[in-house]
Amino acid sequence: MSEGGQDATVGDLVVATRQGAPRAVARLISLVENGAPSLREVMAALAPDTGRARVVGLTGPPGVGKSTTTSALVRAYRARGERVGVLAVDPSSPFSGGALLGDRVRMNEHALDDGVYIRSMASRGHLGGLSGTTPQALRVLDAAGCDVVIVETVGVGQSEVEVAGLADTTVVLLAPGMGDGIQAAKAGILEIGDVYVVNKADRDGADSAVRDLKYMLRLGSAAGGGGGGTDSADAPGVAVAVAWSPPVLRTIAPEGTGIGELVQALDDHARWLASSGEDVRRRERRAAEEIEAIALTVLRGRMVGVQAGGVDVLARAVAAGELDPFSAADRLVAGLTG
Amino acid sequence: MSEGGQDATVGDLVVATRQGAPRAVARLISLVENGAPSLREVMAALAPDTGRARVVGLTGPPGVGKSTTTSALVRAYRARGERVGVLAVDPSSPFSGGALLGDRVRMNEHALDDGVYIRSMASRGHLGGLSGTTPQALRVLDAAGCDVVIVETVGVGQSEVEVAGLADTTVVLLAPGMGDGIQAAKAGILEIGDVYVVNKADRDGADSAVRDLKYMLRLGSAAGGGGGGTDSADAPGVAVAVAWSPPVLRTIAPEGTGIGELVQALDDHARWLASSGEDVRRRERRAAEEIEAIALTVLRGRMVGVQAGGVDVLARAVAAGELDPFSAADRLVAGLTG
Repeated sequence: MSEGGQDATVGDLVVATRQGAPRAVARLISLVENGAPSLREVMAALAPDTGRARVVGLTGPPGVGKSTTTSALVRAYRARGERVGVLAVDPSSPFSGGALLGDRVRMNEHALDDGVYIRSMASRGHLGGLSGTTPQALRVLDAAGCDVVIVETVGVGQSEVEVAGLADTTVVLLAPGMGDGIQAAKAGILEIGDVYVVNKADRDGADSAVRDLKYMLRLGSAAGGGGGGTDSADAPGVAVAVAWSPPVLRTIAPEGTGIGELVQALDDHARWLASSGEDVRRRERRAAEEIEAIALTVLRGRMVGVQAGGVDVLARAVAAGELDPFSAADRLVAGLTG
Repeated sequence: MSEGGQDATVGDLVVATRQGAPRAVARLISLVENGAPSLREVMAALAPDTGRARVVGLTGPPGVGKSTTTSALVRAYRARGERVGVLAVDPSSPFSGGALLGDRVRMNEHALDDGVYIRSMASRGHLGGLSGTTPQALRVLDAAGCDVVIVETVGVGQSEVEVAGLADTTVVLLAPGMGDGIQAAKAGILEIGDVYVVNKADRDGADSAVRDLKYMLRLGSAAGGGGGGTDSADAPGVAVAVAWSPPVLRTIAPEGTGIGELVQALDDHARWLASSGEDVRRRERRAAEEIEAIALTVLRGRMVGVQAGGVDVLARAVAAGELDPFSAADRLVAGLTG
């Protein structure tokens, strides 16, 4: 009986989400964040409505103007009548409540627009990071009818690699004169961007930032590191799609300068994805990572219950030097699968 | 026959590592990095020799002087005749070859000291991050007779949380006038440090950085967020260990100013760990995470082989909206454990 009531509620939320009702969307994303058991049911119900939204990842070091750029992009997409979702993922804290949402406030201009869904999420916990819950929040926004979903995250550590794994198109945002920050980020950043943007292009050093970036991208592609299109010639007789060369654009986001060009570049990339078949590949890769992340979470949950006292007993033996960690892991796995 | 030869080689490496031979240590850490099959055997052989080294995690935003501080700490420990290991983990790249090792060069002063082992590692790949291979590299250095192992990593994203999970004592390094960087890092940083250091203490803004940090730490512990010692009163009748209050120190690492006080604070914390029983708890927690990470890697490996075509077939169905990711994950798990 109570199950019926529960079902009705989740069913109602699913129906309302399909119709794009903001409150239902928000509640479903909360279910995702909390890992609610009803999530399985929700995702099964939403599955047929997904796979339509374009996912744009936007990443870069702290202070480059990601929030302002996202806001300008939202404005541009809204001007063409598209529905837009924004997931702002904060990888700097494992705690949901600890996410630093101060500059979310700048997004307030969109707060009353019911064609825009904005959500901040902490990427909590050790396992999964960005990839743990974000794909499912994406599904909710996708099913709600968003044409575009922007996933914005601070480009630090693995989060930038993870956001690229989630997105159809990844935008890497930089700003002039960031010195160490850019240096530190470069190694990872050069491999993931489909579009590069030097924001704050009115500042000193913008020219050299653009020049350096172009130079490094050229070096990278010459070394065979870059270019998502190089492996797209898999059907004999089909015209080989030209490899995508990531453009380097300039913006001054607060005044909207260069945002039109950025939207254009994103459209170009979407067309390239479709013509090269890379769109399907990226979506399948994303689905594979999502499935694996869920499967690992399921298995991890089971580990806690395994054996008398679960992992704790094994950990005690390993900490005492009585058992090596591989043998302990074998016993854990055997307990799950035996 | 060839197995015998292999065994002899690995066996030799294990013996030489126990004797602290630098080349053997380096080769075993390479086995760890490459995930060599012989690792299981190595770890089983080393297990009885582990559990002695103190593990100091050192983290902070780019540019605060982590490398120089590590080098100064190495000098201080060497002056007391202790053997020191350094693992410099770069989370900014998933590629081992892409690790930015430029400032490792500063550590060259220790290159000819055979009581010091220095190793740079990339924390590659999606799953595991820092926690994937670092615990096993720690075991090698531990078995080689290191009294202290310093794990140095850029405090970005989850890496700072991960390094705290690995360490007995976590040092968070900051510098004055970093503005945005510190702001962005704060949420995570306040929860993980056992000792805080404002390096470059001769720069403008050092006083206010120290003051701000102390204020935020006080707020945090008043809110019940901080203090690793609060849950240490689990045996009735045993004196309750006083909670540890993370000190905030000042250093100018290149000239060694404040390094004596930092070493003192690390010694104080080690004594507190031992007297509160927190040392055992941290080591067991570390072992548990290590076991789980290995078990998940084993399971992940199996996933690839599961079903006709493995995860790919499931991913295709999910990407097409024919299957939801939870049902796909269930099938994957069933294939592993059924």
